[in-house]
Amino acid sequence: MTLPGNPVLGRLTDLRYELALASRILANEGVLDAFGHVSLRHPSDPGRYFLPRARSPQLVEPADVLEFTLDSEPAKPAVDKLFAERVIHGSIYAARGDVMAVCHHHAAAVLPFCVAGVPIIPVFHLGAAAGEDIPFWDQRDEFGDTNLLVVKPEEGRSLARTLGAHPAVLMTHHGATVVGKDLRELVSRAIFMCQNAQYQLQAHLLGKVVPLSSGETRLAGSINAMPNVVGRTWEYWTMRLADAGRLPGRPPRRVVR
Amino acid sequence: MTLPGNPVLGRLTDLRYELALASRILANEGVLDAFGHVSLRHPSDPGRYFLPRARSPQLVEPADVLEFTLDSEPAKPAVDKLFAERVIHGSIYAARGDVMAVCHHHAAAVLPFCVAGVPIIPVFHLGAAAGEDIPFWDQRDEFGDTNLLVVKPEEGRSLARTLGAHPAVLMTHHGATVVGKDLRELVSRAIFMCQNAQYQLQAHLLGKVVPLSSGETRLAGSINAMPNVVGRTWEYWTMRLADAGRLPGRPPRRVVR
Amino acid sequence: MTLPGNPVLGRLTDLRYELALASRILANEGVLDAFGHVSLRHPSDPGRYFLPRARSPQLVEPADVLEFTLDSEPAKPAVDKLFAERVIHGSIYAARGDVMAVCHHHAAAVLPFCVAGVPIIPVFHLGAAAGEDIPFWDQRDEFGDTNLLVVKPEEGRSLARTLGAHPAVLMTHHGATVVGKDLRELVSRAIFMCQNAQYQLQAHLLGKVVPLSSGETRLAGSINAMPNVVGRTWEYWTMRLADAGRLPGRPPRRVVR
Amino acid sequence: MTLPGNPVLGRLTDLRYELALASRILANEGVLDAFGHVSLRHPSDPGRYFLPRARSPQLVEPADVLEFTLDSEPAKPAVDKLFAERVIHGSIYAARGDVMAVCHHHAAAVLPFCVAGVPIIPVFHLGAAAGEDIPFWDQRDEFGDTNLLVVKPEEGRSLARTLGAHPAVLMTHHGATVVGKDLRELVSRAIFMCQNAQYQLQAHLLGKVVPLSSGETRLAGSINAMPNVVGRTWEYWTMRLADAGRLPGRPPRRVVR
Repeated sequence: MTLPGNPVLGRLTDLRYELALASRILANEGVLDAFGHVSLRHPSDPGRYFLPRARSPQLVEPADVLEFTLDSEPAKPAVDKLFAERVIHGSIYAARGDVMAVCHHHAAAVLPFCVAGVPIIPVFHLGAAAGEDIPFWDQRDEFGDTNLLVVKPEEGRSLARTLGAHPAVLMTHHGATVVGKDLRELVSRAIFMCQNAQYQLQAHLLGKVVPLSSGETRLAGSINAMPNVVGRTWEYWTMRLADAGRLPGRPPRRVVR
Repeated sequence: MTLPGNPVLGRLTDLRYELALASRILANEGVLDAFGHVSLRHPSDPGRYFLPRARSPQLVEPADVLEFTLDSEPAKPAVDKLFAERVIHGSIYAARGDVMAVCHHHAAAVLPFCVAGVPIIPVFHLGAAAGEDIPFWDQRDEFGDTNLLVVKPEEGRSLARTLGAHPAVLMTHHGATVVGKDLRELVSRAIFMCQNAQYQLQAHLLGKVVPLSSGETRLAGSINAMPNVVGRTWEYWTMRLADAGRLPGRPPRRVVR
Repeated sequence: MTLPGNPVLGRLTDLRYELALASRILANEGVLDAFGHVSLRHPSDPGRYFLPRARSPQLVEPADVLEFTLDSEPAKPAVDKLFAERVIHGSIYAARGDVMAVCHHHAAAVLPFCVAGVPIIPVFHLGAAAGEDIPFWDQRDEFGDTNLLVVKPEEGRSLARTLGAHPAVLMTHHGATVVGKDLRELVSRAIFMCQNAQYQLQAHLLGKVVPLSSGETRLAGSINAMPNVVGRTWEYWTMRLADAGRLPGRPPRRVVR
Repeated sequence: MTLPGNPVLGRLTDLRYELALASRILANEGVLDAFGHVSLRHPSDPGRYFLPRARSPQLVEPADVLEFTLDSEPAKPAVDKLFAERVIHGSIYAARGDVMAVCHHHAAAVLPFCVAGVPIIPVFHLGAAAGEDIPFWDQRDEFGDTNLLVVKPEEGRSLARTLGAHPAVLMTHHGATVVGKDLRELVSRAIFMCQNAQYQLQAHLLGKVVPLSSGETRLAGSINAMPNVVGRTWEYWTMRLADAGRLPGRPPRRVVR
């Protein structure tokens, strides 16, 4: 949807809708719940990113999406409540030029691994999307006893360092942060990483967890981002969200800010 | 909603609605089922509390909410059926001046721990809301073979003694009782304690349960009651209840009793 | 609902509705699925019982309910397809004068126990409804290799012998059969037995299954049939069925047969 | 529904509807998700089969169903995106004259077995539908590191060889492929195989997995295809799909191609 007379504004309107949609899809598929957040780097200004105001992901509307600097300060004075942990997003965008989208979550599927300290490894073809070895970050190692929220800039930078060049990082006693080269890759990676964790735990119960080989992980790692696959998953997850009556409100025809 | 001419009556009407809402939210989130109950201390008369008539929590309407003395006798002669286990509430309000809300439940997430006698310990930041060590109460220790319902005043007092200053108590072969300094803290604590139990069991299956440190538990223990968080969770759980078509009937404009 | 001029007919109409309702509640609560069936002894003719025609339990309508002799032959020539396993019902009514309702099911919660050969034992107060020790019946012991369906009269009688005076019997590689002194006791017993199985399995995973004492089992064994409790559970399960849009069609005003 | 003047066209219209219905039932029952596909051999031309265009199974409409040769080439030039893994279907139809329907899936219930390399064995009467021993196929054995998608004709033929005369084959790190002598047998076999896997895993957790005897497996193996049973399951699964609002659009009155 491009607005006549202002293509940039139209594109940003689309982008806010897409971010609200991604946020709600991740909630509807069990990655996000009351908590967690998804962000998107500004498509033409790499020093800015978009993140909703502090609100449960399944309720995010396009109009809730705000713009931030890489210091995670609001680009315009904000009246809304902001996510305390937004430094996660800013720190990663600052450290990783290739990352265009970030999701921080506490999914039920990954939490047991964050408690047991057991690494999540790729056990099925789609699970390869999260890479061969996902690093662990324990806030306590560097910052001692905290309430485990990632709030200070140095906490965000420490997390980004542990993430390194990986597609995801596990956070001890807390959850996970996943990144993508675009929003749809991020969404499918986050969802398949949760499925992978679930299958891994159950295979462990059956007695043996056989991971993909390194070669298989590399080759299968981009299935989730193949156009044929993205088209299919996006239609499917959107249909499920629509069935749940949870599509975002349509973007307004004209956004005046 | 304050009624013109009678602010106290208006506040109590709100309170009855809020209690019905809390009751239904806890059912919708899997803490309560056909059984269990939530109560609220009278805001201006600490010697009284509010509890619904005997009815499944997901069906409670504001008009079902009755007033009780701390002996768990109805403040006015009651024609409705009452919960057999209401002494749980009265005994705790009598023993704990700081407690403003109580929930007794048989959630599927905590029952395995009540059967195995394994303590629930904080394993993720939000799970810290239930404290570092939740005591166990076995009715049989003091009262021998019973049908496990907490019905006699001395049974209620015994349970309250074991609860002590903790946020929750596990009841062997039965369930749990959780308390809060207000209704919303109680609701989030009960929900996060269930999530914590679930992650703890699965981490145990993965081979190792690493709890939060004492310092982390203390610092993270109040995240669930932070205003920014309560606003978000309450909107989210209410939205989910609305999606399920289970919001309580709106309070009548004027309550004549 | 009593029909003017024919109280017996009115009562049977009610009874057919109640049986369809019980059938759908058990399906909605996960005890029954595509398979399984519930029956009711004729209230005034102990030599007859009511059972639906062969149809998935969540689809049963009052008009699907047929009358059978204790030999499990239709009381009137039937044009409908009949359950192959109806001898389960007839054999139990013949052997147990105190039984007024029977349910045979393959619930996901009990199947693992039927495969592992591990007894289900009472681990929480409501689970006591299924008794202290539920016997196992393996069709192969007496009949060798079969397709495991209980079809022959002697198979039904053998199952009834193993059931003995118990509230339920587990069937190796197959499922369970539960009985009750009325329909609502049966329904609650079947549901709580499934919950008990689930908690027992998870307590086993935590490392220890501590059962109720014999005295506790005896005392708690009838909580599920207490009027205060039955009123509450029936309203709750019916509400859930109504929310799922699955209530049976209302009984016709006048049944002409 | 037979169209006047063109009985063959009418039958094919029905068949496309039936395939869309089967596809959606399998998704609604948790066998398929965003991925997986079901096909049907042409009823009068054994050298052809029907498969939808690349689309999530719960969204398939009759008009999405295309015709393929056994080389898995579209019978008519296709403008739609096609499933990359369609060689699975063509290879099996070429190798197995008795097979009329094929389903490839990644069901959550079977994946843990595909990761642990533990065989699925029949543990309850309906689970016998998948046979006594389901073979394993590991793409890596013959083709080395791949992205695990079965895309090349020789990969399809290799899979078909391992399937042999079995009703199903497990695919290491990937999923399963199930076959049937008609569409409804296939659907019930796929669903009951998933239930069997789930019960087997939980029985394993209880400590012991006792399989059916060979004789029981042989005798119980066709329960799922008994007319009395098929009628019941198909009505039930269709009802559940209708309740979910996911029935395919009705077939158009007249199909012009």
